[in-house]
Amino acid sequence: MFPHPSLLYTPSRHFLRRRHHHYRHHHLLPASPLLHRFLSTLSHTLSHPIYTIWAANTGLGKTLVSAGLAASSILSSSPSLSKLVYIKPLQTGFPLDSDSGFVYDKISQLFLQRNPQATLLASDHTLNVSIPAAKLKIGNSFSVGELEETGEGWSSKNGFEDFGFYEEKKVGAGEEVGSELICKTMYAWKEAISPHLASEREGAIVEDSDLLVLLKRCLEIGVGIKGNGGSSVLCLVETAGGVASPGSSGSLQCDLYRPFRLPSILVGDGRLGGISGTISAYESLIIRGYDVVAIVLEDHGLENEVPLSSYLRNRVPVLVLPSIPKDPLDNLMEWFDESQSVFDSLKGIMLSSFQKRIDRLHEMPKKAQEIFWWPFTQHKLVPEEKVTVIDSRCAEYFAVHKVKDHGCITQMFDACASWWTQGPDAALQTKLARDMGYTAARFGHVMFPENVYEPALECAELLLEGVGKGWASRAYFSDNGSTAVEIALKMAFRKFLVDNKLLLDLPQDNTIDSSIELKVVALVGSYHGDTLGAMDAQAPSSYTGFHQQPWYTGRGIFLEPPIVSMCDGVWKITIPGKMNAEDVILEERSFSSRDEVFNKSRDDSSLVSIYSSYISQELLLSSGSRKFSHAAALIIEPVIQGAGGMLMVDPLFQRTLVKECRNRKIPVIFDEVLTGFWRLGVESAAELLLCQPDIACFAKLMTGGMIPLAATLATNAVFQSFVGDSKLKALLHGHSYSAHALGCAAACNSIKWFKDSETNPNLIPEQNLLRELWDTQLVQKISFHPAVQRTISLGTLFAVELTVDDYDAGYASLCATSLLLKLREDGIFMRPLGNVIYMMCGPCTSPEVCLRMLETLYTRLDEFKHEKIQKANEI
Amino acid sequence: MFPHPSLLYTPSRHFLRRRHHHYRHHHLLPASPLLHRFLSTLSHTLSHPIYTIWAANTGLGKTLVSAGLAASSILSSSPSLSKLVYIKPLQTGFPLDSDSGFVYDKISQLFLQRNPQATLLASDHTLNVSIPAAKLKIGNSFSVGELEETGEGWSSKNGFEDFGFYEEKKVGAGEEVGSELICKTMYAWKEAISPHLASEREGAIVEDSDLLVLLKRCLEIGVGIKGNGGSSVLCLVETAGGVASPGSSGSLQCDLYRPFRLPSILVGDGRLGGISGTISAYESLIIRGYDVVAIVLEDHGLENEVPLSSYLRNRVPVLVLPSIPKDPLDNLMEWFDESQSVFDSLKGIMLSSFQKRIDRLHEMPKKAQEIFWWPFTQHKLVPEEKVTVIDSRCAEYFAVHKVKDHGCITQMFDACASWWTQGPDAALQTKLARDMGYTAARFGHVMFPENVYEPALECAELLLEGVGKGWASRAYFSDNGSTAVEIALKMAFRKFLVDNKLLLDLPQDNTIDSSIELKVVALVGSYHGDTLGAMDAQAPSSYTGFHQQPWYTGRGIFLEPPIVSMCDGVWKITIPGKMNAEDVILEERSFSSRDEVFNKSRDDSSLVSIYSSYISQELLLSSGSRKFSHAAALIIEPVIQGAGGMLMVDPLFQRTLVKECRNRKIPVIFDEVLTGFWRLGVESAAELLLCQPDIACFAKLMTGGMIPLAATLATNAVFQSFVGDSKLKALLHGHSYSAHALGCAAACNSIKWFKDSETNPNLIPEQNLLRELWDTQLVQKISFHPAVQRTISLGTLFAVELTVDDYDAGYASLCATSLLLKLREDGIFMRPLGNVIYMMCGPCTSPEVCLRMLETLYTRLDEFKHEKIQKANEI
Repeated sequence: MFPHPSLLYTPSRHFLRRRHHHYRHHHLLPASPLLHRFLSTLSHTLSHPIYTIWAANTGLGKTLVSAGLAASSILSSSPSLSKLVYIKPLQTGFPLDSDSGFVYDKISQLFLQRNPQATLLASDHTLNVSIPAAKLKIGNSFSVGELEETGEGWSSKNGFEDFGFYEEKKVGAGEEVGSELICKTMYAWKEAISPHLASEREGAIVEDSDLLVLLKRCLEIGVGIKGNGGSSVLCLVETAGGVASPGSSGSLQCDLYRPFRLPSILVGDGRLGGISGTISAYESLIIRGYDVVAIVLEDHGLENEVPLSSYLRNRVPVLVLPSIPKDPLDNLMEWFDESQSVFDSLKGIMLSSFQKRIDRLHEMPKKAQEIFWWPFTQHKLVPEEKVTVIDSRCAEYFAVHKVKDHGCITQMFDACASWWTQGPDAALQTKLARDMGYTAARFGHVMFPENVYEPALECAELLLEGVGKGWASRAYFSDNGSTAVEIALKMAFRKFLVDNKLLLDLPQDNTIDSSIELKVVALVGSYHGDTLGAMDAQAPSSYTGFHQQPWYTGRGIFLEPPIVSMCDGVWKITIPGKMNAEDVILEERSFSSRDEVFNKSRDDSSLVSIYSSYISQELLLSSGSRKFSHAAALIIEPVIQGAGGMLMVDPLFQRTLVKECRNRKIPVIFDEVLTGFWRLGVESAAELLLCQPDIACFAKLMTGGMIPLAATLATNAVFQSFVGDSKLKALLHGHSYSAHALGCAAACNSIKWFKDSETNPNLIPEQNLLRELWDTQLVQKISFHPAVQRTISLGTLFAVELTVDDYDAGYASLCATSLLLKLREDGIFMRPLGNVIYMMCGPCTSPEVCLRMLETLYTRLDEFKHEKIQKANEI
Repeated sequence: MFPHPSLLYTPSRHFLRRRHHHYRHHHLLPASPLLHRFLSTLSHTLSHPIYTIWAANTGLGKTLVSAGLAASSILSSSPSLSKLVYIKPLQTGFPLDSDSGFVYDKISQLFLQRNPQATLLASDHTLNVSIPAAKLKIGNSFSVGELEETGEGWSSKNGFEDFGFYEEKKVGAGEEVGSELICKTMYAWKEAISPHLASEREGAIVEDSDLLVLLKRCLEIGVGIKGNGGSSVLCLVETAGGVASPGSSGSLQCDLYRPFRLPSILVGDGRLGGISGTISAYESLIIRGYDVVAIVLEDHGLENEVPLSSYLRNRVPVLVLPSIPKDPLDNLMEWFDESQSVFDSLKGIMLSSFQKRIDRLHEMPKKAQEIFWWPFTQHKLVPEEKVTVIDSRCAEYFAVHKVKDHGCITQMFDACASWWTQGPDAALQTKLARDMGYTAARFGHVMFPENVYEPALECAELLLEGVGKGWASRAYFSDNGSTAVEIALKMAFRKFLVDNKLLLDLPQDNTIDSSIELKVVALVGSYHGDTLGAMDAQAPSSYTGFHQQPWYTGRGIFLEPPIVSMCDGVWKITIPGKMNAEDVILEERSFSSRDEVFNKSRDDSSLVSIYSSYISQELLLSSGSRKFSHAAALIIEPVIQGAGGMLMVDPLFQRTLVKECRNRKIPVIFDEVLTGFWRLGVESAAELLLCQPDIACFAKLMTGGMIPLAATLATNAVFQSFVGDSKLKALLHGHSYSAHALGCAAACNSIKWFKDSETNPNLIPEQNLLRELWDTQLVQKISFHPAVQRTISLGTLFAVELTVDDYDAGYASLCATSLLLKLREDGIFMRPLGNVIYMMCGPCTSPEVCLRMLETLYTRLDEFKHEKIQKANEI
């Protein structure tokens, strides 16, 4: 299907002429979903400017603009650029219409007219042509099928003739070639209709992924060629029809080309009605994250540029081309001459905008270092070259600027899920973007208390029907996990005080009561946020030292949980020594599969009574210590303790703990900030624990990873403990943007998207859970690796604890640094939790992508181990 | 300029025929900026469906769609609807082209053909016609200027002939009128070009505000008429050209009509390239907050509806009309017959979508009550009828659903600025909406630590060049004011420990050190947020009681500040008794203007030493009380203490306090969450204090009121106290969405918008402050009002403390309830802080709007006082 790559890498050196050469098919990547291929392949160069030429509609003169820019670039006597690459990915009406052929012809003509003493090397190459179009081009004299069988001359694949048509010539009288024009049509069809229709009718459909990979190769033409004054190549990619016209597969072109996010020129509409069409097309590009550098349109005497410029507030220059002669016999030479100053200006804008972008990309790391104060970051450990410049995101992938290889934008899988917030695939991101625009325009933000508006109401409805189903009756909104936890604690404490009739004895004013001390029950290794209230609910850790927060007191009874993990191929529980669990039989502490760990039948295990008595004893100890001290709330991260090091707590222990607290009228809080919304393969991690809380906190993935929003859900009983006659009895906690419309709208979209099997291919609707994303066998293999202490795989999460010497364990450990740097080179962006590393995908990520990442990790682990041994030997 | 209103309210009763009647000009509202008029005027009915008909381009058959819908509505033998109102706000090419004339004619013809036994009353009315168009209509035989002088027959205003052309007829043989068609053209021009060009060329420009007010009146036709099955009227508003075609004034129509946010039908493009144009037009409507209910397009044999439906995922139905005959002599009767089933479907979609909207609006208050848990709200005090249903926001105005008057959507000024967050005018809201779409598409959210991306970098740059100018060198991002304060405290404490060499003595592990107690210096009445750390930094209040947060301890030295306010026309200071300031002369404690309060020359006042010694004494007392207790940070809200009751603290006191703390090496934090970004008329309230902090917190208005984002700015010295070799020395505090791209992008836009005099009409660029927004004289008058204890006006804030008996003062007071309910009826949405009420506008709000609100308040205060006296007498 693809021409030989060498042709594409250095096309001006290897001339392919039809019927002279025969090529074997180059081995290509296996067909697979689009995103699979992004991983390492979809980079593009920044060695020279590449622009996409879009139009507001068909027939507005995109190709004339391309030709004019080509003329401006390579036709002057001392050309500012020595090479122009013109790429037409999709051409219909072929061979009668060929935009690359038009550019090739026109520029040749213009060259002879303007610069006859010099020499231009020009070529036109059509790479893939549908069979009907190919037949039309060469005549219908022989059967394609036959030739394919013999392996001679022709062959066809997916309905395309795949050698293409190549033509080149030297133009002008010069001895040496001064400038070069390379024109390429990637795919061509016969009928002069939209590519999606032509593809269907001619039986020749190009998958988006194939198109992108081929385009990527075409974009490599001219990499690294530098003229005297710097960059000497300009590349133009001309789209077909309007900005949102479907491509071959039916995807809109503005969506299709988005992974490259090339800077754009929009050819506007100078006709009656053209202002509207131009603005709308501009907006379709903008809300897909494109940068539009200039708008250019043909003069139709209506001065459409005036309202356009005014509306765009001069952010985007609007240029006007002279009227195009309507006479089809006109060779346009005169028009090109008249237009040249406009094209010179346009080219100038494009070059200077490119240079500005490059300059900015280069200065960003230094500026960031100078003025940012990154959270959780020791600035001294981040030299300039370690700063990652993120140019954009598409689905799970960052587009990152790299200085090497003449500069490029390359894709990296965001395997830390940007602090566990991310979920959207490309389609959801596009949808969310449009909805963010809609919601901002419709609501911006509006006051929440005593008011109701659609996004907040729908969001509350979806939360109560989803993660709160069966127990929650109220939604309290705030901004992040930490505030959601502080609210949950206030709710739980009030409930406890009411249930235990402690409120009655209190003075009704706002004096501080020191006779009652309320404590939380929480687990060692837990993490609930960084604000003081949330911190006080967690056990002492690196985050809570006096250096960090001198006000931290740790107002809790902190229990040590049993931890589950896969070690050397087996899932097993590590039980804290305190619990005296030496007698528990092996069958009850190790498992043949992860599912067994979550099995309800474990309620009959002898561990239950061991857990129960440990819990009772700890609660008793604590309440005995001070007369007025009460355990007034239980707070746990169900199943996975994230920041604590991706620790999987034995679900049986947590279930037992909940039961014990219930028996003592201690309200139960689940902190699902990390675990909620399919992170662990189910919508709410409570489903894995097989029990329900009184209060639960959600944030992070709730908005699909767009913007901050948190919700604290509560039962009706909890809510009722705040109802009364006085405003002072109400829960007086709120943040300015409580239930802000944009966050709620993003949440509504994401919640629905992830739980709909039409949009989430990973969902098994009957079971209401995600299919296994991390290859079970490979996970097992990794757990045997000598560099690995333990592994966890559950839902979208895969984690590895690296084997280290004791002194190097924990949050401050830098042991994973070299490993992660290698993985970044492989296109996987990870962040460590000390000596624990993890990969986190989205609920819609393809298992193929996960497999590829695991494979890469395995390879790098080998190197890592090897290095360590070497180092040890050196010492 | 407007026809007599009676004509518009009940047009079918008052028939105006040219040359028969002469009307005097009805007195109209004075010309004034658009938003001024919104306040009470721009409501529209929900008694029947009103739809806007938009198109992707000109010439796609909008008028045929209108006519088809009219036919479907009122032409069947038992019509589902009895009345069709067709409004064409802007008509060019008049009188040759008249879309309302076309609908009038076609429906009459169709009626005779389909339903000759019944009777239709049809009228066509053109209200305002440009002089050239009017001349063409009636002939060029007399001079308009002459007639205007005599006041007879014709008159013209702003280039329009203002009586209009009216025609009506009874169609059919029935005796009683069964159905009615009312067609109106609001403004017409002669040339068949875009309205903005025709307006300019014919010297007849309609201001947006005039157009909206007239449209509002037209929309009132048919209010409250109910058929058997409920609503019996359908109203269509047909736009001109494409969705983003400019109107008469040059504003794009999609922006121009936005305040009504009518549900929409989009006429798509069935031609080659039409998929793109249709999707782009759809998106232009969506990112302005419109609801598009259906797309309808003409069949051109390309099946454009297939990719459109697929792309829109069936959210929006796409209907296809038969090809329209190209022969201009075709009377289209056959085409209308063929199309009728499509129009019936379309009408069905429109009616059911309308009904769904109405049903939802009605159920929302109840659902909200059932599942929301509003912050700071005693649910028992909010009955269903008190819940405000907010349908949308446009600039400073909510569009609110009211059940009364057959149901309507009405505008209310958001005078609580939605918890002090709001700032955008309509143009900024549109810009922000597009930018939210762009940023979501380009970035979504990406990981912040160790990374850099454009919105975060630009935001940090703007913060340091703006509110942090001259002192700050680092930006730390978080989610809200409360987290920004917790971060600020951690920064200040570390700085204090380093400066005072206390860190060296500490154990380097994470044990809790109880030998050192750090306290904040803060003011009584201050408020810094609702998370525990922020609460502990404030003095005990209604928010901090044991009921609310049992963990609150109040770790501060809380000083009592002197308060400034205007009482009975004079600005004066109330100095706490403790300060022994009885001897201070009157000139030093009262001021002839507010500016005097802020004058630097007050540094020579005798108050300075009084303040100084009070501060010294309090700090000494506190540190003396425990050996290891240190005042380790000062935190103040500069100038205005918001939640404390809109208290204006004497700036001289705060300046003195800062100086005293500096002398003691106590780091200074300004909590500018409320005061930042022009809230007080300057970009940063530090400018009013004439001194700078070490650390400052910003949030709320920073994003222009879009979404949560906060920043804690710090000096380099503060930053350096976290730099070291260990990660554990870094500031380990962060939230998932730290520096999220959408928040940063919104902040960049807003920060630039408010400080640019081209976009902010209130800015006095030379002085870098806002002009006075609250009429000084009226504020003074209000301060004399017997119901008023004190007033404050500063920047965008105006506040009043109501005179109440002592027992009724404070946060829990409900005394303002009746007053605020009246003000809501007047279209002003306020929320009380106990017995303090306030109005807050945006940095761009017109002083005229503020004046109107003050006037309204004054009137209602009179009533309020009167009621109170009556009640007192009754008792």
